[in-house]
Amino acid sequence: MKKLINAVDSILSESLQGLEAIHGDILALGDGGAFVRRKALTPGKVALISGGGSGHEPLHAGFVGVGMLDAACPGQVFTSPTPDQMLAAVNAVGTAAGSLFIVKNYEGDVMNFEMAAEMAATPVATIITDDDVAVPKSTWSTGRRGVAGTLIVEKMVGAAAEQGRELGALKSLGEEVNRRTRSMGVALSSCTVPAAGKPTFTLAEDEMEMGVGIHGEPGRRRVKLASADAIAEEMMGAILDDLSVTSGTPCLLLVNGFGGTPAMELYLMAHAAKRVMAGRGLALARGLVGSYVTSLDMAGCSLTVTALDDSLTALWDAPVHTAALRWG
Amino acid sequence: MKKLINAVDSILSESLQGLEAIHGDILALGDGGAFVRRKALTPGKVALISGGGSGHEPLHAGFVGVGMLDAACPGQVFTSPTPDQMLAAVNAVGTAAGSLFIVKNYEGDVMNFEMAAEMAATPVATIITDDDVAVPKSTWSTGRRGVAGTLIVEKMVGAAAEQGRELGALKSLGEEVNRRTRSMGVALSSCTVPAAGKPTFTLAEDEMEMGVGIHGEPGRRRVKLASADAIAEEMMGAILDDLSVTSGTPCLLLVNGFGGTPAMELYLMAHAAKRVMAGRGLALARGLVGSYVTSLDMAGCSLTVTALDDSLTALWDAPVHTAALRWG
Repeated sequence: MKKLINAVDSILSESLQGLEAIHGDILALGDGGAFVRRKALTPGKVALISGGGSGHEPLHAGFVGVGMLDAACPGQVFTSPTPDQMLAAVNAVGTAAGSLFIVKNYEGDVMNFEMAAEMAATPVATIITDDDVAVPKSTWSTGRRGVAGTLIVEKMVGAAAEQGRELGALKSLGEEVNRRTRSMGVALSSCTVPAAGKPTFTLAEDEMEMGVGIHGEPGRRRVKLASADAIAEEMMGAILDDLSVTSGTPCLLLVNGFGGTPAMELYLMAHAAKRVMAGRGLALARGLVGSYVTSLDMAGCSLTVTALDDSLTALWDAPVHTAALRWG
Repeated sequence: MKKLINAVDSILSESLQGLEAIHGDILALGDGGAFVRRKALTPGKVALISGGGSGHEPLHAGFVGVGMLDAACPGQVFTSPTPDQMLAAVNAVGTAAGSLFIVKNYEGDVMNFEMAAEMAATPVATIITDDDVAVPKSTWSTGRRGVAGTLIVEKMVGAAAEQGRELGALKSLGEEVNRRTRSMGVALSSCTVPAAGKPTFTLAEDEMEMGVGIHGEPGRRRVKLASADAIAEEMMGAILDDLSVTSGTPCLLLVNGFGGTPAMELYLMAHAAKRVMAGRGLALARGLVGSYVTSLDMAGCSLTVTALDDSLTALWDAPVHTAALRWG
């Protein structure tokens, strides 16, 4: 295993300390790293809290800041955070207006966020994201997995929360964004979980895993490495067939790297994905390219499409100031 | 070779088209991809033009926009752009106030930018960056190599150009930033140049290349893989000894991923580098962590330190709006 680390046990803690050292103007560690919180809170605003296993950075801690999350709870690598982490976050950043949990659809995460919601003294609502069209259920999920589309839910709901919308309205909005969002991924190499010390799975030199999950879970099938155009055709086809958008719909395209794939290839995939969209009469209204929802050092990418309308476009365009996303 | 591509010959062109598709509000391709230019120019401003071999994305095209470059000329992978590309960029974005070339110190780049400067009809000045302390000269360089510190030169000089400073003053500023900046890198794996189809060099499972160049050129020595702390100690030691900053100097730290290393490890390295700085009484005044000056899919990172003063800090903090860097 080749990684820039000191010891397997201290990776998460040292990485979080680095995050705080670099972005101390935006965020701070709470309870010794149990959660990452905004440096300054907006009184009375519904608090957005997410979290999940680490190894997907910048998701979620890199999205803490004005316009997105109020707090993120990092678990160990590919392991759900514990309910006391979410509860501590609620106690630190929650308000009387309530807290909204944004949770990717994995059994451990869903259960632990649910337990925290039951223990919280202030109102809590929960959005479950399940945007991955690759498989109907997977290693750690009943139903579809929540993957890179979670970023889009966090961004749009985050913008709406800044406007002062109420807890119930924000939950409905998040569920609508999730319903309008689909993703699918492909791996060219496995990730290596530090505690395991060896690749999670093995691909031959000419193979790829089509429909891979963000923990290296199996996808639809293992096939021969294909061209970028063929990969985009298959992934966008699965996404757009499932989303059933009508021609002319403005769309947001997210090309997400898994951690081991450089920007040059991701932009090339954006070009390929745009061609597939154009072939179906869909407009690339907004786009984002980068490694935002990663799987440690896995090579490969995911494509995500959200069907926009004017109101969602405005929420996407609204100012955001986090470690990993910044505009407006 | 496992890459998200269609054909070796079309990688650059398709990636640039993806860049334009996603960031069409900021930039546009000129002359069919000979250069990437700002969508809108500021009349009368000195034009900042950079460029170099591709494979280092987002450098340089990802830094085209308000507050940084006016144009970037992408060569083929790890190959200098040709003088006619720079000349076309000068003709498109240059003004009577002149154009400033920012060039990494590699023989091909230096020669080709020099030829373009001689052919240009408007005034041109040139800054050569050579921030890499690893080796005194290298495969394609006479003298030190220009690496990730180039980003810092482009950002600070870009901010000063927006203020309306003149060509000569901008050249002096860029040279001062370069003098105050040092970098060093380490590779845990080789990159694979698409046209070669196989790794540029080979490292055993327990080896790293200390002082590697951004094209996979040899560094100081090949050694056993060390801990993040030991790597940071050696690289920061070399950087800070060479920079000879006095205790108390505010510093900018850039932790730069080479393309195959995830954010989690880069932030861990930031934590390790900060500790070395603290041990020498240096303040981490500003920080940037991400994969900005890459070497295709190489795993590893570089550390860069710039000794700041109030004026340089203000230039760093000034607004920037590009594909890859955005704040203010």
